[in-house]
Amino acid sequence: MSDRTLCVIGLGLIGGSLLRAADGAGWKVRGTATSAADVTAASDAGFDVTSSIEDVLRAAAHDDALVTLAVPLPAVTDVLPVVARHAPHCRLTDVVSVKQPVAAAVARHAPLARYVGGHPMAGTSASGWAAGSATLFTGAPWMVSTDDGADPMVWAQVARLALDCGAHVVPAGAEDHDAAVARVSHLPHVLAAVLASVGADGGPLAMALGAGSFTDGTRVAASRPELVRAMCEGNRDALLAAVDDALGRLGAARGSLASTGGLDATIRAGHLARQAFDAARNAGRGDAVHIDAVHIDTVHIDTVHIDLTTPNALAQLRKIAQSGGHVVALDTTHCHVAR
Amino acid sequence: MSDRTLCVIGLGLIGGSLLRAADGAGWKVRGTATSAADVTAASDAGFDVTSSIEDVLRAAAHDDALVTLAVPLPAVTDVLPVVARHAPHCRLTDVVSVKQPVAAAVARHAPLARYVGGHPMAGTSASGWAAGSATLFTGAPWMVSTDDGADPMVWAQVARLALDCGAHVVPAGAEDHDAAVARVSHLPHVLAAVLASVGADGGPLAMALGAGSFTDGTRVAASRPELVRAMCEGNRDALLAAVDDALGRLGAARGSLASTGGLDATIRAGHLARQAFDAARNAGRGDAVHIDAVHIDTVHIDTVHIDLTTPNALAQLRKIAQSGGHVVALDTTHCHVAR
Repeated sequence: MSDRTLCVIGLGLIGGSLLRAADGAGWKVRGTATSAADVTAASDAGFDVTSSIEDVLRAAAHDDALVTLAVPLPAVTDVLPVVARHAPHCRLTDVVSVKQPVAAAVARHAPLARYVGGHPMAGTSASGWAAGSATLFTGAPWMVSTDDGADPMVWAQVARLALDCGAHVVPAGAEDHDAAVARVSHLPHVLAAVLASVGADGGPLAMALGAGSFTDGTRVAASRPELVRAMCEGNRDALLAAVDDALGRLGAARGSLASTGGLDATIRAGHLARQAFDAARNAGRGDAVHIDAVHIDTVHIDTVHIDLTTPNALAQLRKIAQSGGHVVALDTTHCHVAR
Repeated sequence: MSDRTLCVIGLGLIGGSLLRAADGAGWKVRGTATSAADVTAASDAGFDVTSSIEDVLRAAAHDDALVTLAVPLPAVTDVLPVVARHAPHCRLTDVVSVKQPVAAAVARHAPLARYVGGHPMAGTSASGWAAGSATLFTGAPWMVSTDDGADPMVWAQVARLALDCGAHVVPAGAEDHDAAVARVSHLPHVLAAVLASVGADGGPLAMALGAGSFTDGTRVAASRPELVRAMCEGNRDALLAAVDDALGRLGAARGSLASTGGLDATIRAGHLARQAFDAARNAGRGDAVHIDAVHIDTVHIDTVHIDLTTPNALAQLRKIAQSGGHVVALDTTHCHVAR
């Protein structure tokens, strides 16, 4: 049974956490990394890892493991030709923070791979194997891409991996995902950088007076700059739209403060938006789904059950993601579905 | 000995925490609030509180308590005339987040009070007595105003209160303070509001995908809007300068992303700024000062000892704050200083 065999390429914060979490959930896991330190540390922790990407890919091809790219976006185009050479037909996913560029790279460099993109929305400002944790994904949203053309059975296996790691699955399309994360993941990094710089412009006294709001608002500016750049620059068009929205809103706040002295509209809109976010998060946490379906290919979203063997299943899932829904369970009681 | 007698006006998050922290440090504390719920809760917790501001002020006048205004900025001008009526000559401080407007209001409404402004840089997005804690100020910067004309002995008593509450004292001038907090406290609130709104503009999918960077970046948008408005609008000129700096930097990022596709300058500058902030915080935490002076009026800043009885003591302190220094100890071994 190869369904739960995982091959992780890259053992940094996300890849290393994935290796630990999947192992903890009973998957057979293997991994590789270019960082000798990460390979040694993972090996010392008892994991089956190697510095040879060729070796793990050949093994993955042999037992049809789910290959997961856990490298920064700029390294994806280096790794994919190796995948195409040693495991051309593999089941393939990734954990990169933008989805359209990865999908395009897969189409170009590893066109035979059965690819379904993914993106766990979890992380810290630390990086590397040592920063990882088996519980990093607990309670986190994990986007699993529902673009047309994906193999629904591979989709279900990637979703299974995410659920097994403690995440809930957001079944979005790549374009929708990239537009959304520009707003809630990439723009926060740009604003954190701007805020940190404006604070530092205030000199030593400003640094001495920085407290909770500044600490939180600049937290992600502590992340490794090259990783932040890779994800922001890799989502250029969507990020431009988000930055323009922010510039418009900040400019409006500036105008209001300068003219009337008031910030009511800005502060009130932000407060309502944050309340909406809290409500969405709490709804996500509170979902309890009774699993009563009998097919491995049945997805449960609240009370909606979707049969992955129907032609428009992925489109249905995409639509549910657009309206804020997510998958909380995949039935695995029976495996008698034929496609 | 009235030196450590405290009268707190307002028992919300900050005032309520101050009452608890000072009590824990051995001060004799009394308080009042307009919120009946806060008065009842504080009373039930065993504190000497009353809904009558007149009563506590008369008592403060009688035993020369240090009166502390812990009300939002818009309420300061309501409270000060009552102070002037019932305790006109009191030792007076406050915990309001802007200092020049409070100083101006005191000069106008309670000109005989011996006022030294203060601002503990601590808080949460919650509010009210119930949200308070005796440890809220532990490790926090607490600005104690060193403007010319202040009574150095009252300054020392306010600084003593801050130190007793576990904070370290930043001896800044009001104008310097207001310019700095516009950058590290008020701008973070404006950017959090903008970020929350831009995220919500992305619809339910964006809300579903929001994770750590969005949660942290919008945390303070959960604060009560009227409190955020009061502090931001009360620091209008300094905040305008900070917003303009942010607009300039965000516009530059936008231009770079649109033209070259790169965000190197923005991300790198933000990362360096955040590192500078971390270094400043760690330096603050790590300070260890050997207290060897013998006068109550000797302030220790790292290895600098300042005699508060010298004419330029406050100006010296202001200069030290400008360069990022803070007070970690006030000598209290002997009290034989004459002024």
